[in-house]
Order: sequence, then structure tokens, then C-alpha cells
Amino acid sequence: MQTERIWTAALIVIGDEILSGRTQDRNVAQLASWLNVQGIRLAEVRIVPDREEAIVEAVNILRARNDYLFTTGGIGPTHDDITVDAMAAALGVGVVHHPAAVAVLERYYASRGGITEARLRMARVPEGATLIENRLTGAPGIRYGNIFIMAGVPHITAGMLDALTGTLEGGRPVVSKTIGSWVAESEIADVLRAVEKAHDGVAIGSYPFFREGRTGANFVVRSPDEALVDTCLADLTARLTEAGYAVAAGGI
Amino acid sequence: MQTERIWTAALIVIGDEILSGRTQDRNVAQLASWLNVQGIRLAEVRIVPDREEAIVEAVNILRARNDYLFTTGGIGPTHDDITVDAMAAALGVGVVHHPAAVAVLERYYASRGGITEARLRMARVPEGATLIENRLTGAPGIRYGNIFIMAGVPHITAGMLDALTGTLEGGRPVVSKTIGSWVAESEIADVLRAVEKAHDGVAIGSYPFFREGRTGANFVVRSPDEALVDTCLADLTARLTEAGYAVAAGGI
Repeated sequence: MQTERIWTAALIVIGDEILSGRTQDRNVAQLASWLNVQGIRLAEVRIVPDREEAIVEAVNILRARNDYLFTTGGIGPTHDDITVDAMAAALGVGVVHHPAAVAVLERYYASRGGITEARLRMARVPEGATLIENRLTGAPGIRYGNIFIMAGVPHITAGMLDALTGTLEGGRPVVSKTIGSWVAESEIADVLRAVEKAHDGVAIGSYPFFREGRTGANFVVRSPDEALVDTCLADLTARLTEAGYAVAAGGI
Repeated sequence: MQTERIWTAALIVIGDEILSGRTQDRNVAQLASWLNVQGIRLAEVRIVPDREEAIVEAVNILRARNDYLFTTGGIGPTHDDITVDAMAAALGVGVVHHPAAVAVLERYYASRGGITEARLRMARVPEGATLIENRLTGAPGIRYGNIFIMAGVPHITAGMLDALTGTLEGGRPVVSKTIGSWVAESEIADVLRAVEKAHDGVAIGSYPFFREGRTGANFVVRSPDEALVDTCLADLTARLTEAGYAVAAGGI
């Protein structure tokens, strides 16, 4: 059997506003979906406060065991934006003003009151880093090797991911197909287990829900091999139908 | 100066569906808000896949350095629900069927097709655990010392948190008040920094936004000491007003 290289990424979400419950994170789901398309699997996420030692610990562990590391949050102009300093500390390098970032910010703020020291903070990068384009607000994201330092505001992050699309090496994207049924997952747990076991290389997730006063579940079949997904899905559909449950392709 | 004991909690979100981007997590924000009211601070979150070694690693590190540990996800009846086994492995204890959980499930499923082996899986707990009531679907949450094992489906988690309300020891809840202004945060970064520095024990978060084609920011002032929050907020409001920015109490 051929073993397929799996490319992995980790994400560190940086920000007291997420841990306090003030802000609902959207970057985990956004990055996960984007990574899928690049053929990279989001392997783990940590949400840490705006505190240097917490960021440094997460950076050093996660970058050592993943192909890529992403961070979101903490790259703005204010006192609570400490991601660049923490990252530089983790990497053991200094912090410098990136000349191209300075130029971008000077241009961006020319018609917005001019550049200031606070605004220039957004040009600071770990020494040796390159920039990730931000078409929306000027302040760029930062790339250092396989580390990607991005904005916390989701639509700015989206623009940065857009700028990175197609530039990262990955494997085959995971193909994921869903079927649904108005069944309590506990009724067909044995079927799910048996079907997953019968199809090596495929993972089946079972996601129950309660809607319109009724119990149902969606079953998501995943593998980088689309043919395997289709075979497994057909098998699962057949066995559920045989057991008397109507199956909705695409999920409910 | 009196040092105040800060109670902390960590959360492990368990589930491939979050890491694949299929499901948008809602438990981080939900737990964070609930913990605030209990006087406990959510200090860190990890999102891990449905894989035993990933769960074990996170459990052992996080429970050692926080007062409380919560998990969400992976306690259903299907093959991908491995939280109880992973938790027992991390704790070095066996897995048993909890008699009260068996009774609850038998009662719940009496009118729903009867109890089955798969459904009985939801009565499995690490040996020595007690139960957290689940009024919605029968299958209880699990408490083991200061570890709380909860459902992944947010409204079921909400019910479990409701059952725990007021039972956990905490400190003074963090008071958090917000003001907002139509200002680019980069314009008043120095003011924010100076005000935070002038008010020891208070943290100021700056959260920019873009709405109706305009740039603004909300500033959140946080401390367990409400008097400190109010003093700091008044100072910040005065300095922003003085600098020519209209301030909206409560945020924009």
C-alpha cells in the first residue's frame, strides 16, 4: 500500500477578546476551509491570550511538528498588539521595520492623516520576514519561512489568504461528501463502525442534530481519494436504506 | 497591594468537524461568557482532532496548570466519540458504566426504541467520575474532580453549564465595559497606551471595525475591580473627547 504524504498546519488564534467571549472567532473555520483546498490539513489550533510567553510556547511547539504555522490577531498598531514581538522572541531574531511595509503604509495613510509612529508599528516584522499583501487596509501580513502571521479581523485575513492561494505546497485535497438521515445516531452506530472498518483510508464523522422536533444525523465521509469516498458512501447508503432509513444525498 | 487570586480554566474542543471547517465552533464563546460570570478566566483553548494521543497530551498539560479543565465533543454513541476513553487513558484510570447514567439512558430510551449497546456507550465514564445533568437528551456530561466533560452540540452544552452554575469556586468576575468611537485605532494608540499604564490592574483591548464605509474602534476596559474600570473608562473618555473624538458609551 502506498503511503501518501499528509501536509499539516497549525493555527494560533491570539487575542483576549476570543478568550473573554467578547468576539466569536471565525478564523478557525475560514482557515480550515482554505487549507483543505490547498491540500493541507489543519491539525491543531490553540487560542492564547495577548501574553508573550503564551504565544512563544505555542509557536515553538506547533512549528516544530507541523509543515506550516499560521497566526491570527495582534498585528495592529495598539499596545495590545504584541504578536510580532512574541514571534521574534520565539524565533530568536530581532524586530525591524520592513522597508516595503513602510512604503505601503506611507502610501495608504498619505490621504488619511499621514504616517505616525503608531502606524509605523504595523511595518514591524521579525528580521528576515517577507510580506503578505493586504489590499484592504494597507497593513500587510507577514511570512517568515513556513510561518504566516495574519490579521485578526476575518475579512482582512480572507484577503491575505487570497494572496497566498496556490503558493503553498500541499498534497491531494481531502474530498468530503455528506449524506443525512432522520435517524438517531445511536440506532446505527454499529453500521457506521462496520462501514468505516470495511473501507481503509476513509474516515466517517457522525454529526447529530435536532430540528423541527426531530432527531437526525449527517454522516461525512472523508479521504483524499475520491473513489474511496464514493465507494464508502455507496456502501453506507445501501446499509442504511436496508435498515429502513431514508437517506438524503448531500445531507439534511 | 493586595494580590487577588485568579481562577483559571482551559478548554479542549475535540472534533475533526471543527478542524475541517465543516462546523463553526460556538462553545469557546459560550463557555468563556459563562466562566466570566462564575469568576473564572478562560486562560487557553486547544482544538484537537478525534485522536487519542492528541487528547491525552492536551489533557495532561492543561489540567496541570489550570484550576479547571473543560472538554466539549466526542461523548456520543458512535465510533468517532473517543473522549471518555482518551480521558481515562490520560488520568490512568479504567472506564466503567456509571449506574446512574445507565438508569437515565434506560428511562430516556424506553419510549424511543429501547436501550442498545451503542446507546449504553453514553453511560461510560472514567472510573470515579460523577455525572452532569443533561435535561435535553438523556446522555449526561461527566465530572471527574475539576475536569468537566461536556457535549459538542452547543445547546446541550448550554444545558450542562446551566446545571453547573454556581457550583464552582471562583474569584470576583471580571467587569468589562466598552466605549466606541469613529476613529482609526492607529490615531489614538498613544492615548490607549498611556491610559492603560496610568491605571494599574486594568487591561484595555482595542477592537477596530469597518462599517458603513467608515473606520471605528471599540475599546474594552477590563478588571475584577469595577471602581477601577469606571475610573479608567472616565479617563479614556476624557482624553478621547479632548483629542476631538466623539465617544459612544457602550460601544458602537
